Amino acid sequence: MPYYIGDVIKDEKSLIARTPEKFRESGIEVRIDTRVEEIDPVKRLVRLAGGEALPYDFLVLGTGMKPLMPGIPGEEREGVFTLKRLTDAVRMKTWLRDLSCRKAIIVGAGFIGMEMSEAIRNLGIETQVFHRGTLPVNRWDPEFGKWILEELGRHRVGFVTNVETRAVEEGREHRLRLITNRGEDEADMILMAVGIQPATELARQMGLPLGKTGAIRVNFSQRTPQEGVYAVGDCAESFHRVSGQWVSIPLGDIANKQGRVAGGNIGGGKMIFPGIVGSQCFKLFDLEVAATGLDEREALQSGFHPASTLVWGNSTARSMPGNKKLGLKLIADRATGKLLGAQAVGEMGAVSRINTLACAIWAGLGLDDVGWLDLAYSPPFGGSWDPIHIAAQALRRQI
Amino acid sequence: MPYYIGDVIKDEKSLIARTPEKFRESGIEVRIDTRVEEIDPVKRLVRLAGGEALPYDFLVLGTGMKPLMPGIPGEEREGVFTLKRLTDAVRMKTWLRDLSCRKAIIVGAGFIGMEMSEAIRNLGIETQVFHRGTLPVNRWDPEFGKWILEELGRHRVGFVTNVETRAVEEGREHRLRLITNRGEDEADMILMAVGIQPATELARQMGLPLGKTGAIRVNFSQRTPQEGVYAVGDCAESFHRVSGQWVSIPLGDIANKQGRVAGGNIGGGKMIFPGIVGSQCFKLFDLEVAATGLDEREALQSGFHPASTLVWGNSTARSMPGNKKLGLKLIADRATGKLLGAQAVGEMGAVSRINTLACAIWAGLGLDDVGWLDLAYSPPFGGSWDPIHIAAQALRRQI
Repeated sequence: MPYYIGDVIKDEKSLIARTPEKFRESGIEVRIDTRVEEIDPVKRLVRLAGGEALPYDFLVLGTGMKPLMPGIPGEEREGVFTLKRLTDAVRMKTWLRDLSCRKAIIVGAGFIGMEMSEAIRNLGIETQVFHRGTLPVNRWDPEFGKWILEELGRHRVGFVTNVETRAVEEGREHRLRLITNRGEDEADMILMAVGIQPATELARQMGLPLGKTGAIRVNFSQRTPQEGVYAVGDCAESFHRVSGQWVSIPLGDIANKQGRVAGGNIGGGKMIFPGIVGSQCFKLFDLEVAATGLDEREALQSGFHPASTLVWGNSTARSMPGNKKLGLKLIADRATGKLLGAQAVGEMGAVSRINTLACAIWAGLGLDDVGWLDLAYSPPFGGSWDPIHIAAQALRRQI
Repeated sequence: MPYYIGDVIKDEKSLIARTPEKFRESGIEVRIDTRVEEIDPVKRLVRLAGGEALPYDFLVLGTGMKPLMPGIPGEEREGVFTLKRLTDAVRMKTWLRDLSCRKAIIVGAGFIGMEMSEAIRNLGIETQVFHRGTLPVNRWDPEFGKWILEELGRHRVGFVTNVETRAVEEGREHRLRLITNRGEDEADMILMAVGIQPATELARQMGLPLGKTGAIRVNFSQRTPQEGVYAVGDCAESFHRVSGQWVSIPLGDIANKQGRVAGGNIGGGKMIFPGIVGSQCFKLFDLEVAATGLDEREALQSGFHPASTLVWGNSTARSMPGNKKLGLKLIADRATGKLLGAQAVGEMGAVSRINTLACAIWAGLGLDDVGWLDLAYSPPFGGSWDPIHIAAQALRRQI
């Protein structure tokens, strides 16, 4: 009987707590709230916190990521949260509701910071984002960062720049006080969203090699060097098809795919995970923010000679009602014309463009192809020249 | 000085009638409402209706398509329309308004029939579509045809099947009466949307070869076999990258691209039009209807061994509010696993999926790639397994 060990999420409705029973019907034993203390790769034993030892033929590590903390005094105070799993969100929501919170501070302006700023603001809570830089989501071009900043402002989310956090103290008017280089700010909750790192304690303890990213090294079958041991999801590396590097990009769709590949191979199938191209997106109030491939810094680091262009176009034909502004940036290699990366922001159609370009990058297309792609044209969905064509042809002329 | 001869559209606001002046500033003489009677390819002369003859070094034929008529008695009556240019739409709108029309009949259930049924219905006019088949838009799978039919019904557009038109007569309660094998129906206007054919009179008269599609044969530079003579747009053929055939697909984005290629080459550049993959879409009330590549019949005719699957998925993660049903059909070759075609219908995200798949087909990807494409994942925009992945993996297992 195969085992599944982990802290299966119990949400407010306890729906998922029924998971063990559901799996048992399929002959799988699921143990929730079960801590693995140690793994013995020689005897092939998983030792649990209570002392029990379970033998394995195959072992899949899916230990995920853990949020980083700034490492400042008081960060362990009640009311200071990080977001990793659904239960964290439930705890946060309960805290905000039960204590009738009126003010929240989010430290960090990446994906989690942005998505949570919308979620918390939409509860009617005064929300501020504290960021060590000057513009949110630095993966995107500063032009897009400015637009995202405007979107935060339009929804009255505060944004404080160039922040270094120093301490969390007890507040006077609110529960907590955050001390920074910019002063002292009180709030009823603080969300630390300053970064994440792969959770690799068990992997290290059992002697598995980690990549230079800090995540577990795997091959295209999701196998580690130890016989029968696989790693999948945020704790494992992925092959980036553009840079040719093994990278650590913790995203749910990648984890899903890797899990299917590991399971298929353990079940006797022949499957590989063909890698990623770095596609990602998030929603921020009315904006779609999306990217794929490499940004210019990564392209340089990978040995390419990047050139880029940023065009402002339209999500639909200009004549259509409901037409929205769309920004699209393309990055290509000067030597070969190969498309290396793309970024898009807009109220409509940004994710759609990025998915088309993700496929182009996956297939290794160059600007000569991307500039003439046969996209489905109809005025409600785009112009006869899509921003994709316009940007690709502009960048082609440039290089 | 280069010439541009054609019936430049004059809309109600006469905006475009200013085109000749605008072009003159660039040294281009535009003649509108000017009929070309004959072209002499030996003397390189364009003879106009008034007798004037203009010499040319380069000639671009962009004569477009013309709508077919059913060829029945009375089809020339006032109130019977076809739709080719903006002026046709303006004439129709004026007719509907000035005569306070209450009932309209559309003959034909292709693109034009569908789009016009929405446009006319939205004016509050009782609208019926008469179709020779049983389901609209036969390019799409019957499952999708049924959904489109439901959408017409939901918006109270009538749909009459298996119709053969016989005559148009004067009506009693309404202006016109349409006689068909199904009976007699009155309406204040009738739109004939039964098909189109390339307008090639001038091309034939000057001795240019036509393809088996009936459109003008061109090469990748948009050149015809006659020195200095180009053809672009609906009157010219395009290379279909999947079937390897030269086809006639009259769409505005293709025409735009071909025009740019011809212009670039005439201007001394080196440009080619790399062909199409058959992408197309339209909006029908709340539905997006889109397709790319070959359908099964075309795939068979092109020598492939098509297999297909149709999956019902979701436009966003199932947990998201506003999530909509999305149908996706994929067609692939049994011998190679190569993706040959795709169709999608849904209230949201159908065109987006088809554009991604159009890029996959353009690049010649197979199901092993399409099933693992790295798409930008976030719950508001899709599940971690997108319908694209689900359909591609299902079809892969099937073949």
